Amino acid sequence: MSTNPRVKHSVAAMCGYAPGEQLRRPGLVKLNTNENPYPPSPAVTAALHSFTADDLRRYPDPVCTELRALIAGRHAVAPEQVFVGNGSDEILALATRAFVEDDGQIGFLEPSYSLYPVLAAIRGVSAVMVELDPVFDVRLPETCTASLFLLANPNAPTGRICPVEAVAAFAKSFAGVLLVDEAYADFASDNAMRLAASCPNVLVMRTLSKSYSLAGLRLGYVVGPADLIAAFYTIKDSYNVDLIAQRVAVAALRDEPCMRANVARVQATRVRLAARLAALDYDVTPSESNFLWVRPPAHFPAREVYARLKAQDILVRYFAGLRTGAHLRITVGTDQEVDRLLTALQALNGAAGEKQ
Amino acid sequence: MSTNPRVKHSVAAMCGYAPGEQLRRPGLVKLNTNENPYPPSPAVTAALHSFTADDLRRYPDPVCTELRALIAGRHAVAPEQVFVGNGSDEILALATRAFVEDDGQIGFLEPSYSLYPVLAAIRGVSAVMVELDPVFDVRLPETCTASLFLLANPNAPTGRICPVEAVAAFAKSFAGVLLVDEAYADFASDNAMRLAASCPNVLVMRTLSKSYSLAGLRLGYVVGPADLIAAFYTIKDSYNVDLIAQRVAVAALRDEPCMRANVARVQATRVRLAARLAALDYDVTPSESNFLWVRPPAHFPAREVYARLKAQDILVRYFAGLRTGAHLRITVGTDQEVDRLLTALQALNGAAGEKQ
Repeated sequence: MSTNPRVKHSVAAMCGYAPGEQLRRPGLVKLNTNENPYPPSPAVTAALHSFTADDLRRYPDPVCTELRALIAGRHAVAPEQVFVGNGSDEILALATRAFVEDDGQIGFLEPSYSLYPVLAAIRGVSAVMVELDPVFDVRLPETCTASLFLLANPNAPTGRICPVEAVAAFAKSFAGVLLVDEAYADFASDNAMRLAASCPNVLVMRTLSKSYSLAGLRLGYVVGPADLIAAFYTIKDSYNVDLIAQRVAVAALRDEPCMRANVARVQATRVRLAARLAALDYDVTPSESNFLWVRPPAHFPAREVYARLKAQDILVRYFAGLRTGAHLRITVGTDQEVDRLLTALQALNGAAGEKQ
Repeated sequence: MSTNPRVKHSVAAMCGYAPGEQLRRPGLVKLNTNENPYPPSPAVTAALHSFTADDLRRYPDPVCTELRALIAGRHAVAPEQVFVGNGSDEILALATRAFVEDDGQIGFLEPSYSLYPVLAAIRGVSAVMVELDPVFDVRLPETCTASLFLLANPNAPTGRICPVEAVAAFAKSFAGVLLVDEAYADFASDNAMRLAASCPNVLVMRTLSKSYSLAGLRLGYVVGPADLIAAFYTIKDSYNVDLIAQRVAVAALRDEPCMRANVARVQATRVRLAARLAALDYDVTPSESNFLWVRPPAHFPAREVYARLKAQDILVRYFAGLRTGAHLRITVGTDQEVDRLLTALQALNGAAGEKQ
């Protein structure tokens, strides 16, 4: 919160987004920010090592020509239907400026990605929140006055997917732009990419942060109608994706089998972790992502479980709030990391049993 | 220009920024986007080759702790007085959202960095333009109603510097935020960094694109009062600077002698190029940057010189417009590149002499 009167009033009054803790202690079991526990393609290392310093003297291609062509081919659309961003966070922020008038509204699920309300506050417009049902299922509204709807699907922090048919029906009735944030789509059973190619108001966004194991790179992209995609190019920073990220992303995307293998391992561990947590009396929301949304057993406040795990160098994510405060979001790590978590939770259950 | 009614009206009506041509033909003499002709520190290559793919699984430090500390130490300020951006373009765009109300104005010189009016249009606010005097000297106004003033110093495309005393006097009389864009400061005789540490409304911005030869990396930073810097953190994208850029920037900044040596070579070539162009009857504006702002001899339209050079694979920058259309902006390249340019211009002069 700023006290300098030169800061825009709405900015001075707001709090920024709080990312999950990025602790770097050795031995830490980090299951709090949905990073992939397995390394990206070896082609990524090769691409990095192929650079010499002299390559960096020049500005990057401002419109990511090679990378766009690759992405367009992957999704069977034209390059004009693809925009690449400095992480999908940049794409979300650009969308709030491209598709929302100053008196417009931004819609999103509640709870959902906790960045969305921050983006509405930064843009200085009001939010239209669509509540999840009691078991965190998505019920899209029949009418919505927002001019931009940010739909995380699968949703975070719940991991639930809204069927693509329901997404399509919502898009048809919705006058604004529907941006489907598919950060976790590679871990899911379906996705809405086919709508980006066929609907006049649907954008589908992907990231290399999760399934491609490249959170450190900052690379996201969005696919949709060319006349909506053009608006991103109009207002983006001149050279928004650096030269290294462009070349590394090309290398990573070309090795799709590596990504698929990592995703399959995460999915297998997800099944095992869900079963073991259920056996420990955790209520586990069925997940189509690389994390689980769980409620600890009765008389076990989620915040306390979070704190006790952290004291043992195991980080999970806790979101305070009426709809979220009874739950924890746990990233699916390696089998070894997940076993350390389960051992710690089992010990907590045991200690609670003795107390009773 | 978009025809989809879902695009914000002001965005649909505007044209985006047009970066200088980024042609990649071999043999091209590229003197159009003020890139450094000499490679960055060898430590940059070492940093790049030190990465393994697995390093990129994790999100980067969202607030660039190590890099900020290094920059803060360099300029003798606190880390809270430093913000790092994905290129200084990102910092400029953030400033328009942090310090300008919806009915505010953004001020800048005319001519200056051609991105500034685009940023005002993206922000949807009006521009206050301060004309340069007839020889392109900066005359800062005694009063200015803008809430943010973007002052390129040395200015582009002219290469002229406004004395720091004049900048300080303007800052004192100015109620808004003065952002001094010092992209070319390392090539100049003075800079305003001391004002960032002492004035409540002055921000000073630097980039690694020019003097540090890292245009491909996208790394800029801004220094100023902590309560203004805090506003950037409030509204920035969650992880705006990727992990690679953070580590590479640290390596580059630690090798300041390499940067200084490259700058000295560019300055020496600048002196030689200016003298040779003057001998060819070009009017050369004295430069404190890594480029020259020149007017070709009479009866030689700048646009035609630009086109003739381009036909010979020599790229310089031409800006159409009343104040700029008689001039060319020529980046100072290597001695060899500059000699190819001079040979071509000499031949043009000779051909013109024969025609007369």
